[in-house]
Parts: sequence; structure tokens; C-alpha cells
Amino acid sequence: MTAALLNPLVTRLSPPPIPAVQAWGKSYPGSLGPLIDLSQAVPGYPPHPDMLRWLGEAAASLDYTNYGPIEGETPLREAYAAHVSQLYGAKIVGGNIHITSGCNQAFICAVMAVAAAGDTVLMSDPFYFNHETTLSMLGIKTGFVTCESADGFVPNVEAVERALTPGVRALALVTPNNPTGAIYPPAQLKAIFDICRKNGIWLILDETYRDFLPEGFGAPHGLLAEKNWQDNLIQLYSFSKSFCIPGHRLGALTAAENVVEEIAKIMDNLQICAPRAVQGAVARALPALAEWRAGNRLEIEARAKALREVMTDLGDWRLEAVGAYFAFIRHPFEGHASTEVAEFLAKRAGILAIPGEYFGAQYTRFLRFAFANADAPTIRQLRGRMQDFHVGADQ
Amino acid sequence: MTAALLNPLVTRLSPPPIPAVQAWGKSYPGSLGPLIDLSQAVPGYPPHPDMLRWLGEAAASLDYTNYGPIEGETPLREAYAAHVSQLYGAKIVGGNIHITSGCNQAFICAVMAVAAAGDTVLMSDPFYFNHETTLSMLGIKTGFVTCESADGFVPNVEAVERALTPGVRALALVTPNNPTGAIYPPAQLKAIFDICRKNGIWLILDETYRDFLPEGFGAPHGLLAEKNWQDNLIQLYSFSKSFCIPGHRLGALTAAENVVEEIAKIMDNLQICAPRAVQGAVARALPALAEWRAGNRLEIEARAKALREVMTDLGDWRLEAVGAYFAFIRHPFEGHASTEVAEFLAKRAGILAIPGEYFGAQYTRFLRFAFANADAPTIRQLRGRMQDFHVGADQ
Repeated sequence: MTAALLNPLVTRLSPPPIPAVQAWGKSYPGSLGPLIDLSQAVPGYPPHPDMLRWLGEAAASLDYTNYGPIEGETPLREAYAAHVSQLYGAKIVGGNIHITSGCNQAFICAVMAVAAAGDTVLMSDPFYFNHETTLSMLGIKTGFVTCESADGFVPNVEAVERALTPGVRALALVTPNNPTGAIYPPAQLKAIFDICRKNGIWLILDETYRDFLPEGFGAPHGLLAEKNWQDNLIQLYSFSKSFCIPGHRLGALTAAENVVEEIAKIMDNLQICAPRAVQGAVARALPALAEWRAGNRLEIEARAKALREVMTDLGDWRLEAVGAYFAFIRHPFEGHASTEVAEFLAKRAGILAIPGEYFGAQYTRFLRFAFANADAPTIRQLRGRMQDFHVGADQ
Repeated sequence: MTAALLNPLVTRLSPPPIPAVQAWGKSYPGSLGPLIDLSQAVPGYPPHPDMLRWLGEAAASLDYTNYGPIEGETPLREAYAAHVSQLYGAKIVGGNIHITSGCNQAFICAVMAVAAAGDTVLMSDPFYFNHETTLSMLGIKTGFVTCESADGFVPNVEAVERALTPGVRALALVTPNNPTGAIYPPAQLKAIFDICRKNGIWLILDETYRDFLPEGFGAPHGLLAEKNWQDNLIQLYSFSKSFCIPGHRLGALTAAENVVEEIAKIMDNLQICAPRAVQGAVARALPALAEWRAGNRLEIEARAKALREVMTDLGDWRLEAVGAYFAFIRHPFEGHASTEVAEFLAKRAGILAIPGEYFGAQYTRFLRFAFANADAPTIRQLRGRMQDFHVGADQ
């Protein structure tokens, strides 16, 4: 008898980082008050009561027990197309929308639609770790566009051009960014999109956090209103953060209608269709809860402000970027890896953050704070805990 | 400006077959009574009222709005492990279980865990089309174990041995089979498993339809009770058919604990975790609705019996295999492709069936009837419609 072998593309991946970080939190004795969990990006407030009611009604209904359309429920595709059209001043129709089980699934659908094993997909560096592991497990090569702290971690045009080697099929960006929080200016996105168009590659734009742009920002960008945008752009979105329902798993892609048809082939293999009841509920919530979502945007802005205040003159801690959901923070402990700092920070100070190394080996001096998870009074508690914090043996 | 390219592994796939077949049904004028839809395998009866109530309660609850464990909700993993242990006389624990969004997702997780682009995975021929398209889009080569009508479409040991070329990582089988309905005898599965063990390859066993084995069949097989089963076996299951909830997307894998850990890496990239509320509801339903499921098994058996009677002496139509959910039926129209026959059958006789070609090019003389979709009185209506049916121009 011979034991069968596993796929080395998978076995060589690190275990998923979020559960590992959350395990550190379990060793915190609570000495400084409750654990402040800034690890996984989750809304730190509950869904609207109507959202829960609609979820319950849909799930209890016979209407959603059977298989549904692979591309998604028509009412949700149309409601979301109308929403995107209005937000971006664009003409998007239901046929441009494919519904998925969350935005990680939207990402894997997008990359599988445009790249096979052996092709190359570019990412920003630092990168969102699931994008990197998704490409690696598919045998797709990764290239990187380095984002400089001096540029506020916004990729510059020259760095994109340098990364364009033969075999590149797509550039995947996240704005507002995960992990840095950097908000890519519309003009910069246009310049990068023009490079993609000139070189015949896809721009895959993950906009999971766009509903948390600062009040008055306007359209996140103008790319969806560009002529022939659909020849080079695939846009990704998550309903998890805005509607506070990550456990229900719902996301969406916006793309050319023929790309949506290709993605339907992929989704049919991945899981036939996204779960249906939540689609019915969100189709109702998308127009109905607009005002509630606008209120949440203000709340998250208040949290960002609280974090900026906390980080002012906080010893050698440095807030290098902040926006939407995340802050990318330089820790003061030279010679100590971010994993070590994050582990001590969890166990000793009761602050859960993600080590910078998880977003690229060179970010060992950084931590990602998903500050949107915590309300402003909780964020203000960080100051004392971080001031008194040290790495290594107790003094 | 240059339009970007799509992945040829995806563009060359045929569009998903079920929507194409269902579109034919829309052209049926209703002249012989309501459409009889035997295309997609869906339970032709509603879920238990308690199931709907538990789904509604879970979806409306704050308990499931946030992210959950990647591997699945602990109560469901434990309830399902207990169920599998009892059914197979095996010792399966929660750590052996990974919850997925349906069984197609369980399949892609299993193949990605064991094979990369360029490796080979074997399937039965005829095959379940989503297995074939999943492997193709991943760049995994496919090999086939031909199943003979004379053997009741059960794969024989010699055919498996012939298919074992270098580079084969796994053999994927479906029992009870989709599309043929063939139920693989436990002794035959043992013989095939032994070949897999001897050759160090995985047996991936999709048992979506196992709850519809004939009354008194006993354990579907003894493989999970074999010593070191976990070195070579990954078992797949769907909650869709047994609980009548395909729209809620829920499936499961049973595997070695270290394989479950590898699959968690894949699932984290595919969609972080399966939707949670349905997991909570099914954890309650799994023990509570055992008697209801036993009743459904009898109902589906009655439908199979009705189909056997319908097919007796029905001209040159031949019921070549039947079991669990499906029948594989030889049509009498020599020289006419199964796609043509199925299209006419839909539009003229109001019977939706899947063309045999979708399960392998050589099955153009066959149609798959998902007879479990229709109750016995409806199945009896097939006789008249099929007797009077002809292909080609109206006579």
C-alpha cells in the first residue's frame, strides 16, 4: 500500500493567517481589559435589523431552495448594476454582473478567466495575502509592483511599467488598499489603466472597501465610464463589509458580458451558483439601506480620526498609511520580526493585528490594523496599551 | 488600445449544459400537458417545514453574520462525522470533515489538493460533466475508465488498471452514478480502492446520491472502515438532494485530518468559508430529520419502479441503467445525435432530459433522465409522450 501524494502548490502554502493570529489572542489574559481585535476586516457593528429580517424571510422561503441562475439572481444583478451605474456615472447592465460567494471568489473567478498555470499576474507589493496564495495554488506566476511608503503606498506608473514582463496577463490592485488603507487617486488609476490598455492586459480592481471612502470623495474612479472599459477591466466587490454579513458570503464582479459568460463556466464548476437567499435579501437592501450605509461611512471615518489621534506622538510607532478600513503601522522594534511583535502585542497588550510579513517579506517592520473593527472609544484605548508595550522578556 | 485576452482553458469549455437544456423547455407549447423536467437533479418535493424554519431562524440570527471557521461550523462537522461513522461503521471525527458550498466545490477542493496543471486525474466514462470541465479549466489532464453497458456501467478492475498511466494522481468516481444511476457494489469499490492503494493514487468518491440507495442496501461501502483509508480516499457529499436545499449550497468532504488542513488553504482562497446559517440549520436537521429522509428514499424508489414500468416494451427505447436519482436511456433514433433527440423531446413532447453526449462523445444514443425530479404519476405520463414521439420533420 502506498499513500497518495498531495499537490505541492498547496502544501507549500502557509496555513491561512487569520486563524493563526486569532489563536494568539486566546493566550491574552485580559489584564489590560478586553481583547481589541483588529485582525480580520469585519464591521465592528451589527447588520441593520431589516437586513436580518430579510435574510430570515428569504432563507425560510421556498423561493430559494432550488438551484438558481449561475450568474446570480436577476433582481440582484439589476439592482447592483443600477447602483454601480449611479456610483460611477456609467452604463452598467445586469448582464455585466456576476454574483459570487464573496470577493475572494470574485478574485479567483477573475484570474481563472484570464490566466492559466504558467501565465503571470501582477499584484501590488505589499499585497493582499489571499490574492498571492490564490495565484500560487493555481500555478500562476506572480509579479509585483512595489508601492513606496513615500508615495503613500500608491503604485506609480513607472513601477507598473517595470513589472510588465512577457507573459503578464493582468494587474490586480486593491483600492482602498488592503493592507495599507491607501486610496488610489482616480487620476492615478486612469494612468495605470491606460498602461494596461496599451499593453493588452487586464486590470482587476478589487474595490471591497470603496463604501468607506471619505465623505465627499465622489466616484472612486472614472474607469467604468471609459469607452471600451470592458476590454481591459474587471471590477470586484464584496457585500460583506457594507452590509455586515460576511458569514453569508456575497460578492460581485462587473465585467464585459462575454467575460461574465466565461465566468459562469468557472462558477458552474466552483459551486453552480452563489447561495440564493442572501441574494434575494441584498437585492432588497441595496436601495433600501443606502442611508444606513452612508451613516456607517461617517462612523468609520470617525474611527480613522480616532486612530490618527492615537498615533500622534506615540513614541517610535509610525502611522505610515491609513484609509477606509486599514492602517499600515511601522513598529518601533528594530531587529524584531513583525510576527514576533504581533504575537507579543496580542498576548501581552491584548491587541490583535496582522504581521506585515504576511503581505510581503519586506514588511517585517509593519503591522496591519483593521481599525474599522473597533469603535472610537476602543481605539482610544490603544494608546495606553501601545505606549507601555515592549517586545521580548518582561522587564 | 489592445483588448486583453481570456484564458483558453475556459473559453474552449462548452457553456454550462443545464441552462441550455432548460432553454429548450421554454419552446414547448404545452400541448401534451405541463413540461416534465428531468434535466437537473433536484428533489421533486419541498424541504421539511422544520428545515425551512431552522434556515430562517439561523439566517435572521446575529450568530452567523460574521466570518466563521474555514473548515466549517464545529456542530455541523461533528454531527456529520457522527452520521458518517454510523452509516459506514467507521470512526470519523469532526477533524476529518471539511464543509463546502455544495459538492461541485467539494470536488474542486479535492482535485486541487491532489493535482496541479499537467497532472492526470481519471474519471469514469460516461462522466459527470462538471468533473470533466473542472479538470479541464485547471489544466489537469483527464483519463478515462470506460464503463460498459454490459457491466451495468460499473467500472471493472481491468479498465482501471489499463487507465493507470504515469502522471495519474487520482481516480474520481461517482456512486450511485451520475449520469447512469449505476450503484457500484461494495466489493467492486474495494477492489478498485485496492488498485489505488497499490499504485499510490487517490480515490475521490462522490457520493452525492447515496441517501437514495435501495432500502436495505446497508452501508454504501466499507472503505471508510479500512485501516489507513485516509492515505488514499477522499469522500464527497452534498446536502442538497437529501435535504432539498440546493439553493443554499452545502456539501462536505471526508478525508485525513492533514488533507482537511490542506483543503482549508484552498477554501480560504475560494471563499473563506461556506455560508454559515445553512450550516447551523443542517446541524439541527441531520439527526432530527432522519425519519423524513428515510421516507424520501422510499418515495424515490417508487419513482424508479414507475420508470421501470414505463420503459417496459416501449418500442425501441431501452432502459440500460437505473438507480438512485438517474436513468441512462438508449433512444431509438439511429443517426440522430442525442442533442437533437433531446431538443425535439423537449420542444415537442415536453420532456426535459440531458443528451448523452454531455457525458462523453460516444453516448450520443443516450439520454439521462433525472427521474427523481418527478413523482410517480408524472413519470407514468412519460409513456404516452415517448410512444408518440418522433425526431425530425412532423409526419
